[in-house]
Amino acid sequence: MAGFRFEVLARDARSQARRGRLHTPHGVIETPAFMPVGTRATVKAIGPEALEALGAEIILANTYHLYLRPGTATVAELGGLHGFTTWRRPMLTDSGGFQVFSLAALAMVDDDGVRFRSHLDGAAHRFTPEVATAAQMQLGADIIMAFDQCLGYPAAAEAAEARQAMERTLRWAERCRREWEGAERGAAVRRGNAEPFPQALFGIVQGGAHLDLRAECAERLAALDLPGYAIGGVSVGEPVETASAVVAATAPRLPADKPRYLMGVGTPEDLERYVRMGVDLFDCVLPTRNARNGVLFTSAGKIAIKNARYARDPGPLDAACGCRVCRRFSRAYLRHLYQSGEVLAAMLNTEHNLFHYLDRMRQLRHAVELGGASPHRPAGRATPPEST
Amino acid sequence: MAGFRFEVLARDARSQARRGRLHTPHGVIETPAFMPVGTRATVKAIGPEALEALGAEIILANTYHLYLRPGTATVAELGGLHGFTTWRRPMLTDSGGFQVFSLAALAMVDDDGVRFRSHLDGAAHRFTPEVATAAQMQLGADIIMAFDQCLGYPAAAEAAEARQAMERTLRWAERCRREWEGAERGAAVRRGNAEPFPQALFGIVQGGAHLDLRAECAERLAALDLPGYAIGGVSVGEPVETASAVVAATAPRLPADKPRYLMGVGTPEDLERYVRMGVDLFDCVLPTRNARNGVLFTSAGKIAIKNARYARDPGPLDAACGCRVCRRFSRAYLRHLYQSGEVLAAMLNTEHNLFHYLDRMRQLRHAVELGGASPHRPAGRATPPEST
Repeated sequence: MAGFRFEVLARDARSQARRGRLHTPHGVIETPAFMPVGTRATVKAIGPEALEALGAEIILANTYHLYLRPGTATVAELGGLHGFTTWRRPMLTDSGGFQVFSLAALAMVDDDGVRFRSHLDGAAHRFTPEVATAAQMQLGADIIMAFDQCLGYPAAAEAAEARQAMERTLRWAERCRREWEGAERGAAVRRGNAEPFPQALFGIVQGGAHLDLRAECAERLAALDLPGYAIGGVSVGEPVETASAVVAATAPRLPADKPRYLMGVGTPEDLERYVRMGVDLFDCVLPTRNARNGVLFTSAGKIAIKNARYARDPGPLDAACGCRVCRRFSRAYLRHLYQSGEVLAAMLNTEHNLFHYLDRMRQLRHAVELGGASPHRPAGRATPPEST
Repeated sequence: MAGFRFEVLARDARSQARRGRLHTPHGVIETPAFMPVGTRATVKAIGPEALEALGAEIILANTYHLYLRPGTATVAELGGLHGFTTWRRPMLTDSGGFQVFSLAALAMVDDDGVRFRSHLDGAAHRFTPEVATAAQMQLGADIIMAFDQCLGYPAAAEAAEARQAMERTLRWAERCRREWEGAERGAAVRRGNAEPFPQALFGIVQGGAHLDLRAECAERLAALDLPGYAIGGVSVGEPVETASAVVAATAPRLPADKPRYLMGVGTPEDLERYVRMGVDLFDCVLPTRNARNGVLFTSAGKIAIKNARYARDPGPLDAACGCRVCRRFSRAYLRHLYQSGEVLAAMLNTEHNLFHYLDRMRQLRHAVELGGASPHRPAGRATPPEST
């Protein structure tokens, strides 16, 4: 597929980890990669310039939110997400499947799609695989996702429910593929004054907590020969052992030459574990949401900046961190900003947490490049205490 | 006074406007200048790096807020406001007089000072001229303000009340001066590991809406021979004609060789008017507060970015503006961010509004430098429509 190509540059000798490179119309993504979440066409509390400076190579946006506001036709008219947001690097849009089931009111699912009411104004809407795919074509991200049925937990533990949602997800993936191929066959998507470019459709593996369903779904999706594959329905409330077993059972059954994306996961420790299982792409609201709640990731573990012990602490948030926040500000000042409810608290905490995530991914990539080294013990770099 | 010096570089031929330069221990301020307000030791929704890039040469902080949280002793321990915030350029602290009367609960004033309860937790506190001055010495701004009694409107219109508050403000100014001189005579203020440096105390003219009281207060304050003078109690609810008459009656009675600071004022048009009356320094929450409320200053006047007319507007906020926001983002995107309640809306709107204010001050300074030119018609530059 023109403009979209995945290469595996190196494999880890002691795990399934791969070091890859994903070529897209808006640039290259070095993998394994973490994708900051920009739900409503902005990563919360940070602008595109600062995100670029952090080294983020791809960000997410959400079709459900943008479909409701400002509307995908409006975004298309303004040059697609790239023109609208001015973010120049690759983007990915989620299909809205997860949000329709978790955020919208009165979601009613049938084989054709989902009826729901907007969480903003209660207006009735209907998402089908065709609607979700067409909406993502209007948004114009480099990577778009198939519309899927995502079960929560413990529903995902019920075999009959999980089977039904999985079968539906597979049928919907085929419908998304037809819709996407039709558009790609005709003319590549053109938005505003931008050059036309192709988009890559990723399929999503469902199957709940059932490893046999996961394996079956992965293999049947692989037959669709899509540009990439995601593992969905993880981190929906299940125990970490279940999540781990699901990824371990699914990742190896996905095509080895296609990128693998684990949706909505997770802590820095989760990312390391799943990189070792062969996952290439991650997204999660954790670093940005925790930042706004004053929970900060450091090389010595998480800290709650509101803690009184930091009130007179002149030291940096994380002496081992090279980010602009740690180079400039004290814990005491960060605590004061947070306690005072200042916007700058969200801004600085977000910048630090994203740097921490992106830097750990750089360390993991470096470790895989070194070949024999296991990614959880990066050679030649200080090893964060909690990852030893 | 070492480290603090004011020079008048040029005077406007057709008004009282002056082009000056204020030397302080943390650098030079070109006047007339606008000082962004950083109430709780941060200008809301913008960091110190971005403020420097905008060309802000001095920012404010507030003694009342910092006395309550995190405490002025804590700030002193962390290197004063400069060490605490990492802002390297000049700073000014307000004395807390205005906030005690406008924000605190149950303020009870007598000749000695003010008893009040914290708006945060209801705890009882007492501010006197000595307490407010000592607190400002702990905070360590380059310019500190005398503790004054500020009347609201219409109280300021009552002659007896205005006279009483003015006499009290004058007596308090003398007590502030004694407290300040005592400390300066001993050793200049040392905070954390920073070099010791002197602070400049400004007196504040009160007198309500009564021009005779204003004139008397200005002359009696001038006799104290302080490094600078402020006009307080303006923009407290009075008609604009009253404010204008008060400034016109007060400014010329303040020493011509000392900087003049009009507190808490105002719109860009206000700033131009009062520059022509000989005011050198301004502060106001308007650009930052309006930014957070989606009200943006442009060369064609104010706009409310939430207006539906901007929903599909691909143009910049202000085509005549050179700020990073106007160079990069569309009105449609700014509207979307505001409508979505995104933090980035506050960040971008704040950056633009402060740029607009600081740029207009640059234009006013340039106009005075040109000598014969009136500051409201900057020669050689596009004249903003609303200022003609």
